[in-house]
Amino acid sequence: MTWSIHDQSLKQADLLNQESIFALGNGYLGVRGNFEEGYRADMQSIRGSYINAFHDVITIPYGEKLYGFPSTQQKLVNIIDAQGIDIYVGEAKERFSMFSGELLTYERELKLDEGYAERRIHWKSPLGQELKLTFRRLVSFAARELFAIDVAINPLSVNGPITVVSTVQGDVENYTAVNDPRVASGHAKLLTTTAIGTENGIDFVQNETLTSKLSVSCATAYSHSSAEHAEHATEEKLVSYSVTFNANGPVSFTKWNVYTDTLRHGEQCLQIARQKAGALAASSFAEQLAAQKQYVQDFWLRSDIVISNDSDLQEGIRFNLFQLLQSAGRDQYSNIAAKGLSGEGYEGHYFWDTEIYMFPVFLLTQPDIAKQLLLYRYHILPFAKQRAQEMGHKKGALYPWRTIAGTECSSFFPSGTAQYHISADIAYSYIQYYMATEDVAFLADYGCEVLAETARLWIEIGHERNGRFYIDEVTGPDEYTCCVNNNYYTNVMAKHNLAWAAKAIELVRQSNPDRYQQLVQQLELTAEEIASWSKAAQMMYLPYDAALDINPQDDSFLNKQVWDFANTPKEKYPLLLHYHPLTIYRYQVCKQADTVLAHFLLEDEQKVETIKHSYDYYERITTHDSSLSSCIFSIMASKIGYDEKAYHYFKETARLDLDNTHGNTKDGLHLANMGGTWMAIVFGFGGVRIKPDALSLSPKLPNDWDHYQFKLQYKQRTIEVKVNKDGVEVTLQSGEPLTILLNDQPVALAQQVPYKLQHNYTVGK
Amino acid sequence: MTWSIHDQSLKQADLLNQESIFALGNGYLGVRGNFEEGYRADMQSIRGSYINAFHDVITIPYGEKLYGFPSTQQKLVNIIDAQGIDIYVGEAKERFSMFSGELLTYERELKLDEGYAERRIHWKSPLGQELKLTFRRLVSFAARELFAIDVAINPLSVNGPITVVSTVQGDVENYTAVNDPRVASGHAKLLTTTAIGTENGIDFVQNETLTSKLSVSCATAYSHSSAEHAEHATEEKLVSYSVTFNANGPVSFTKWNVYTDTLRHGEQCLQIARQKAGALAASSFAEQLAAQKQYVQDFWLRSDIVISNDSDLQEGIRFNLFQLLQSAGRDQYSNIAAKGLSGEGYEGHYFWDTEIYMFPVFLLTQPDIAKQLLLYRYHILPFAKQRAQEMGHKKGALYPWRTIAGTECSSFFPSGTAQYHISADIAYSYIQYYMATEDVAFLADYGCEVLAETARLWIEIGHERNGRFYIDEVTGPDEYTCCVNNNYYTNVMAKHNLAWAAKAIELVRQSNPDRYQQLVQQLELTAEEIASWSKAAQMMYLPYDAALDINPQDDSFLNKQVWDFANTPKEKYPLLLHYHPLTIYRYQVCKQADTVLAHFLLEDEQKVETIKHSYDYYERITTHDSSLSSCIFSIMASKIGYDEKAYHYFKETARLDLDNTHGNTKDGLHLANMGGTWMAIVFGFGGVRIKPDALSLSPKLPNDWDHYQFKLQYKQRTIEVKVNKDGVEVTLQSGEPLTILLNDQPVALAQQVPYKLQHNYTVGK
Repeated sequence: MTWSIHDQSLKQADLLNQESIFALGNGYLGVRGNFEEGYRADMQSIRGSYINAFHDVITIPYGEKLYGFPSTQQKLVNIIDAQGIDIYVGEAKERFSMFSGELLTYERELKLDEGYAERRIHWKSPLGQELKLTFRRLVSFAARELFAIDVAINPLSVNGPITVVSTVQGDVENYTAVNDPRVASGHAKLLTTTAIGTENGIDFVQNETLTSKLSVSCATAYSHSSAEHAEHATEEKLVSYSVTFNANGPVSFTKWNVYTDTLRHGEQCLQIARQKAGALAASSFAEQLAAQKQYVQDFWLRSDIVISNDSDLQEGIRFNLFQLLQSAGRDQYSNIAAKGLSGEGYEGHYFWDTEIYMFPVFLLTQPDIAKQLLLYRYHILPFAKQRAQEMGHKKGALYPWRTIAGTECSSFFPSGTAQYHISADIAYSYIQYYMATEDVAFLADYGCEVLAETARLWIEIGHERNGRFYIDEVTGPDEYTCCVNNNYYTNVMAKHNLAWAAKAIELVRQSNPDRYQQLVQQLELTAEEIASWSKAAQMMYLPYDAALDINPQDDSFLNKQVWDFANTPKEKYPLLLHYHPLTIYRYQVCKQADTVLAHFLLEDEQKVETIKHSYDYYERITTHDSSLSSCIFSIMASKIGYDEKAYHYFKETARLDLDNTHGNTKDGLHLANMGGTWMAIVFGFGGVRIKPDALSLSPKLPNDWDHYQFKLQYKQRTIEVKVNKDGVEVTLQSGEPLTILLNDQPVALAQQVPYKLQHNYTVGK
Repeated sequence: MTWSIHDQSLKQADLLNQESIFALGNGYLGVRGNFEEGYRADMQSIRGSYINAFHDVITIPYGEKLYGFPSTQQKLVNIIDAQGIDIYVGEAKERFSMFSGELLTYERELKLDEGYAERRIHWKSPLGQELKLTFRRLVSFAARELFAIDVAINPLSVNGPITVVSTVQGDVENYTAVNDPRVASGHAKLLTTTAIGTENGIDFVQNETLTSKLSVSCATAYSHSSAEHAEHATEEKLVSYSVTFNANGPVSFTKWNVYTDTLRHGEQCLQIARQKAGALAASSFAEQLAAQKQYVQDFWLRSDIVISNDSDLQEGIRFNLFQLLQSAGRDQYSNIAAKGLSGEGYEGHYFWDTEIYMFPVFLLTQPDIAKQLLLYRYHILPFAKQRAQEMGHKKGALYPWRTIAGTECSSFFPSGTAQYHISADIAYSYIQYYMATEDVAFLADYGCEVLAETARLWIEIGHERNGRFYIDEVTGPDEYTCCVNNNYYTNVMAKHNLAWAAKAIELVRQSNPDRYQQLVQQLELTAEEIASWSKAAQMMYLPYDAALDINPQDDSFLNKQVWDFANTPKEKYPLLLHYHPLTIYRYQVCKQADTVLAHFLLEDEQKVETIKHSYDYYERITTHDSSLSSCIFSIMASKIGYDEKAYHYFKETARLDLDNTHGNTKDGLHLANMGGTWMAIVFGFGGVRIKPDALSLSPKLPNDWDHYQFKLQYKQRTIEVKVNKDGVEVTLQSGEPLTILLNDQPVALAQQVPYKLQHNYTVGK
């Protein structure tokens, strides 16, 4: 069953998590896996539908607001609810609910290979009416505005009619929670209904956000079995369509919900939604399923990872990849929210999670989506430049730590704005993109600007002393250590950013002199400035402790006390929910990979021994309270030969949401961790690295596995890698011949000629 | 005119500042210097009356609320307004206003030697009615609940009656401002009216706070010339008394406002207010003025500082001392707010300002008030112990950075809770008190507990490594450098705290074995724990840079870039209003004295050369954006022989509010700076120090002065110090013979025998 997620639980806690797990999306539109008819009145549900980047602007409250603290933030809006379908059976019009009567069978399935969700029920009502129901729903990859629900009702023993009531609800609000900084803040009602009704049999609701004045429209068309009676009704914020069938035979009812918004569809969005709904309702649900399957199969063809003899892990990795596909924005307005489109945690904001944990998956399997993710960052570059000015810099770009529309949405700067590394992370993804695609035109059109403006930031924030370049008062990835000097991660990433900014401009100068001249003028570049980037990169100070042969996380890290792990009971984790940040900052304790992550991203900066010693050092003091941590420790354990650890950390990532190991899956999925699963296999076990001149592989086989395989897109080629107990087999499936590095040795690949290498990976014990 | 503050300006900006400058108070009750009849309708006034520590509890809003961030804070409440007096003249009942008709003369005076304020007006109404008015008001030191207003009306040419309408207004709100973190937050309406009316000719209003459910009562009795007509009227939240006089001769009208509150007077506070108002109205305003004068004269007898030949400075120092007297709380509930009782800036909170900048004035001039200030801190010790627990410490006491009722009210911890030094500052004031009074009973009853619990805090937060004791992740006094390791100020103050905690307990063991045994049991003290304090004190790491021969402010301070002062225009100061804190933290730039302050408070910890080099170093990078800075630089300039600088910095302090040099006097006076003026003279020019075994003096005479003199209370003695161009004269005015140190030489003083020393101070050039 590794191509689908199954569930039969009706426990409250499980249901809330499953709302996230069974969420459907296509990068534009997302719908949580709620039941059409809802739960029991006393049961909590986070009922949500979202359009990527569709946000309102809310005021950030402060007890003490200092200069430069952002006044407002964007917040993903829970939009019009088109999930509602109620079914009434028999003369007594008993309302169908899985929590009344007798539930004879129940099963829910997320079909990863076909791209839709199905719920199958055999139900007997309190008064004895018996029927079978199948709900199928999809959010279409082919028609990005479409969320379709199909209900098949099979009356086994029903006296009297069956009435299906579909609703489109404009009276919606965001979920609010208290006392968990990882969940959304308390702004619930963000929408007003500006249009509602029925026209040509199509129900519609248009809502507008309170402050950002963005509109979202939902138009719902219907197709169904022939009915005895049907009528539309409009209330203040609710429009409904009620259809009565006789119960002589099976009933089919399809709801075609089309969402549009002013960001993508302009002022005509309501009209466009109605047109599209009408057109789509003329197709059949089967046709849509087929189109969906075709898209998803194509995705798997390029992205699937096969793991033999461990169906739990196989299920986990496929689920994670599918959710990544569902979450990634594909236009200039949108990116991948920390929770994708599956929940409201972190307000729907985009973080560095995209560049460091998710972008690599797309880069090496769906480079077109990867390019879209970069274009989003290019689109918000003006905001990043403005933010740099607000922070007192004369030039450069400081990307916001969290945002939707481009402005800084972080209200607590020590683990927000202070994470200047996000600018280097974004630069890193542009560089990776270039190395994996050789797309120098993209570098010329977009990349150089981003690289130059981020390089300028480091010149602004850093300073030279005694021939070294220092960067003070920043926060690295580890949010348990804030506002420090010379964070190794930040410095080494800034070094890379600076060096490549100069390199990229030189590449454009050589390949496209006209564009180079344009860039020089537009960015007011001088040879001196470009030289200053290279010089700063060369002089960059990277903390190193000779006695320990490790890279200290920052200048003062090793002087602090080590956290008293022995006397910290399990229930005190994650630490951030049980200790004041000041207390946490005081100790050597890491929330997540920081120096270890830097060693992964830029592994040639240090000797392997230093990397290994650092790993040993930091592993002892890292809590992995962040879901961005285990995957990196898995990759680096693979690299340095800690095969058991590599496998242990990998397992932490693969089923994090499916097994709710962080306890907060209800607020949305952990998308970065999902990317991390893929990275732990491909970069970890597979040893893949994008080197400046070649793709490099050093595969290993986890001891518990017989075989695994994955595919890579690289420089317009498809490469398949299979690893089993005999050895590794690499095949260039499409594209021009290519030389790769296999265990650091050049290997020339010709199309469709598998290259086999026997047994030279380390097998875990 | 050095015994009074004069003013004649009616400009809007001046009026707002004068509301603070002409504020009256007695440590319990405070009233801003508003006009009884108000301004013109279009003119802003911050009309306020306050009871020290009378507060409501408000929710602190956060964009991201992390563990241990306080949920609520206290806020000083603007209470019932009893200032209102309107005067209507003539048949046309023209309302008196200084902004209508013709103002023939106007003068306002704050009488520092008599303790009241007077406003004298000669006015002609738009229709030509001519009269003179004198308003006198006092907040009584003898009867702490009394705020009396006396109006004398002299009709020069009035046709028709004169009507005086007195109001007591329950419909009040707090002042709110935007975009200045130094002003109060936006909670305006904090009171509801719970009782109102007139009984036995006494008007009354009782209000209750919304959340803290504290009540404040105001009862107002009247005495006045014989009238033609008089009546009381009660509206929903306003009670008024209207009296009509014929205009044949002078009219006198006295308003006896008595305030009480549930904190001090319990549930019967309204009844008590009415009784007291009735009793006080039976006295005369002249009697109250006499009692006030007696109290104030007694204060000046012990506290006055005389400066010859500079009336501006003489006026400044007397004004500052008078305002300190008016602001100091004298019960267990109250302390000295940052703005005293003169405004709502900083929400009426108490900070370390008290212990380091104001307590010394009281200790050496009014030790009974000093003791009350310490008792307040003793009273809130349980809250400080609880806060230490919240911060993850197993024991000890962490005093709140800002508070009224004892809980932490700071919402931005980097320059709030992180200022752990406040606990050492409070300990320091207990130690100073003991050294200046030899009151070992007070040490036994109160001091030891505070010293022990604060000492425990340092053991909790600090750690030993290689034989040294380190304190990480704190903020020192300089709020432009936050969350650092081994802040010199914090470490040296903690050292003092630790050493004295052990010493104090030993003193009690020797002097009062029973109490010692009690303490041991109550505090669960062991010999090992006490020894650990002494050991930590001995091992305390104090940053020292041998190359510069200075004490670095913290471990990383000298590694940072120096702020670019040359390119920072004047309008960008204070920096905190123009740069993001992260930007400021990144540089060597100080808001205020930090290491320099530590060198003053504990001068024997370093060689004079190191102190001098440090002064030179920090002076170049200190903006004095805080009003707590200049006085310390003045004192230390005196110490190291920078006489011109000493005088320059002193002048910055002496008239800060009178000349509104910080531009925000309207929000309340800068009480700490006022203490700083006294310190700059006594500790600076006078070179006074409270040494463990003796009082030490090293007087100097500023070049611009012919003569200055001050008095000190020390170990139940009164000592007068006179300094002129011939030399210094020290007289023991009362008390047992005493040996002091004069320029480090022991000098035995006998009562009333002046000791003269000629010319051995350095005269400034």
